[in-house]
Amino acid sequence: MLFSIVLLYCCSSAGVLSQLSIHSRHGRECVSPCFSLQQRNNSTSPKIKVDLDNSTGVAVLRMQSPPVNSLSLDFLTEFCINLEKLEMDKSCRGLIITSTLSKVFSAGLDIMEMYGKSPERCGEFWKAVQEMWLKLYGSNMATIAAINGSSPAGGCLMSIGCDYRIMADNPRYSIGLNETQLGIVAPFWFKDTLVNTVGNRAAELSLELGLLYSAPDALKIGLVDQLVPEDQVLSTAQDTMSKWLAVPDHARQITKSMMRKQTIDKLLSNREADITNFVSFITKDSIQRSLRMYLEMLKSRKA
Amino acid sequence: MLFSIVLLYCCSSAGVLSQLSIHSRHGRECVSPCFSLQQRNNSTSPKIKVDLDNSTGVAVLRMQSPPVNSLSLDFLTEFCINLEKLEMDKSCRGLIITSTLSKVFSAGLDIMEMYGKSPERCGEFWKAVQEMWLKLYGSNMATIAAINGSSPAGGCLMSIGCDYRIMADNPRYSIGLNETQLGIVAPFWFKDTLVNTVGNRAAELSLELGLLYSAPDALKIGLVDQLVPEDQVLSTAQDTMSKWLAVPDHARQITKSMMRKQTIDKLLSNREADITNFVSFITKDSIQRSLRMYLEMLKSRKA
Amino acid sequence: MLFSIVLLYCCSSAGVLSQLSIHSRHGRECVSPCFSLQQRNNSTSPKIKVDLDNSTGVAVLRMQSPPVNSLSLDFLTEFCINLEKLEMDKSCRGLIITSTLSKVFSAGLDIMEMYGKSPERCGEFWKAVQEMWLKLYGSNMATIAAINGSSPAGGCLMSIGCDYRIMADNPRYSIGLNETQLGIVAPFWFKDTLVNTVGNRAAELSLELGLLYSAPDALKIGLVDQLVPEDQVLSTAQDTMSKWLAVPDHARQITKSMMRKQTIDKLLSNREADITNFVSFITKDSIQRSLRMYLEMLKSRKA
Repeated sequence: MLFSIVLLYCCSSAGVLSQLSIHSRHGRECVSPCFSLQQRNNSTSPKIKVDLDNSTGVAVLRMQSPPVNSLSLDFLTEFCINLEKLEMDKSCRGLIITSTLSKVFSAGLDIMEMYGKSPERCGEFWKAVQEMWLKLYGSNMATIAAINGSSPAGGCLMSIGCDYRIMADNPRYSIGLNETQLGIVAPFWFKDTLVNTVGNRAAELSLELGLLYSAPDALKIGLVDQLVPEDQVLSTAQDTMSKWLAVPDHARQITKSMMRKQTIDKLLSNREADITNFVSFITKDSIQRSLRMYLEMLKSRKA
Repeated sequence: MLFSIVLLYCCSSAGVLSQLSIHSRHGRECVSPCFSLQQRNNSTSPKIKVDLDNSTGVAVLRMQSPPVNSLSLDFLTEFCINLEKLEMDKSCRGLIITSTLSKVFSAGLDIMEMYGKSPERCGEFWKAVQEMWLKLYGSNMATIAAINGSSPAGGCLMSIGCDYRIMADNPRYSIGLNETQLGIVAPFWFKDTLVNTVGNRAAELSLELGLLYSAPDALKIGLVDQLVPEDQVLSTAQDTMSKWLAVPDHARQITKSMMRKQTIDKLLSNREADITNFVSFITKDSIQRSLRMYLEMLKSRKA
Repeated sequence: MLFSIVLLYCCSSAGVLSQLSIHSRHGRECVSPCFSLQQRNNSTSPKIKVDLDNSTGVAVLRMQSPPVNSLSLDFLTEFCINLEKLEMDKSCRGLIITSTLSKVFSAGLDIMEMYGKSPERCGEFWKAVQEMWLKLYGSNMATIAAINGSSPAGGCLMSIGCDYRIMADNPRYSIGLNETQLGIVAPFWFKDTLVNTVGNRAAELSLELGLLYSAPDALKIGLVDQLVPEDQVLSTAQDTMSKWLAVPDHARQITKSMMRKQTIDKLLSNREADITNFVSFITKDSIQRSLRMYLEMLKSRKA
């Protein structure tokens, strides 16, 4: 189970967060305050903006949900609807995912979806997280993550769900599945996707320690494929996409399915159990208490 | 399904090949014309020459089928017969595979085996491709590929079917499973062998983009184990073989089987289905049309 | 099956050992004589010393069984009892394993447990080897191998059974699963653990050739995680452990289990068959003859 990744963006010295300082690396970009109820984008304005260039067949999906593109149920629903539309649009062959926000790609799952919510609502949320990954990891489009900021936990999952990852060459940006640092556990399909990307040992080390990798370190272990200067992330993604689209779609899609089908089928066969697991974990009194303490700490910081 | 890898050796700007230019790297060795009916070695002279040194127990298998050692049914049959003979010969403990041709190790499967042939003949051909891999990947001999030239697609499969790969340190030589570039798909056992060799992520990237790696790049991702100057490929293979033969055969063979049995069994259990898949794909009108266009283009180039 | 790794520490030119010279690297540390009946620690003094620091929750387990910490039945039993005690002790969260001996971490399984012993005794021994690995690889504690000397075969298995490996930066120290060099075969769970650590291809090469890696080479392939000067191995392990213990235990343990459970379950489901295999192999006349020759060679060297 994974959640509340926005925690990592806060500079906190209290409660459950104190443990995080141990692995923090100096100079890592700190978005503060990261999680502010007042700043939440509760408007009905779209959290995602999609531009499809019909001449190239490439869509750019921009996440634009301040402050940190956290993955709420609304966000995920909008994300999935957009993905599905593009998937059905025969003129769209490639998808680039990026962020309009400064310093952050996506901070991961939204803690508010897990605090004080009914089991039904939690289950609905988790199903949306699964859906996001299933649609992305199994997409027939060529998918490139243009990671122009930090991308912990759910943001990392979204990145490794793509076919290729280009990250801003900024050591202050970090990426990783850092769930264990928060006392929670990345579910098996997060793990499988990470193993598929960086291999078993790097995944083991990364998941057991909940490591966040700076962009250069992420490149070293293969968590991202390429680093470019920050202002060239999107243009490089466009250039790279043209290489992907030079490959006949049909052959690329069959090949992609051959590589990923087993991992996807594993979640499909265990989807309900995975939801049940998440809900029973997240609704535990102890976990809810931790979340409340964290939220109160945020409020007091705000005040 | 994989075929017609000889295409990649042609400098063409027409038809299905135009897409290839996108990933071509400057300076990559170009055997032109690569595929010439007139130049085909249709004689009954052996396409393969085997020399077994009884003092060392090492056989050198030289592929000598101009212009590009393409893997025709005849070639594969001869290859398998030779392999089987050596396998049964208790005095032979090690096998080095190399090419007598300039600039090319093997250009892969022969397109002529797939054009205008009956389903029965196509099935026979595919069975021979399977047989080549099964015999090589599961050989009790220590096997070293002395890759003294380019080795795309089927040539790459042959290379990664060996225990060790030594390649000429020439950036103009390339190696890789580049099937998707041609609109076709490497079958699951090509994929499994590649994953076993370079890991899941490098295999995914490589197969989805149909990448050909220059010798130095191939070394970087572990597609080959060692680069040496071109004139030292065979002698280095001989030296390396002596290290392999220093290991007691029995222990090495059991260990090799432990590493590879699962991958081999997967094809053995799906052999007929794999043949059926190939035949139904290759005999499709659309695929046959592509092949005809390609062959006509070659003829016009010749004329 | 794996045994008698202490052989590798002897400078011998006779019998089964002659083959070993081929892969020996100059300058590799040679503990000679490595296997001396006279020097054996047959006392009832503990072969293992454990110090648990209650303030940190970190235990240091020191192997102190001269000459080479070979894994006898007594040693393994003592090791497992200590491990079990620590595992049950709620105040103990982390375990560092190191050696009090100069130049050697552990030389692996004790040849004397396999020579001239009844099948029952051999089976008992093998069960203890399994138990050591099962307890270590599946430990709830964070485990770090502080490898302050050579660590072939069984010593390597013990190392890769931990969560993290810090080795003395001394090129004369080596580590690896070198069983095939002795004409024997690492069992599937040794292989699985190695594949999990260094990936399939490095494991294949390593196991088929029975490679011992110098400390720098071991770092390159990921067989160890970090090299430090010899006198800093333990202190670095202590520092590193504090990072591991900064991660909430519960989350780390569930994550570790998710990563390793499948590999552990495979041995648990095949434990009896694995013992039967080992016993039938090791009690073969041909193997026993090799062992006797080796032991006689050692005695004559001694005299």
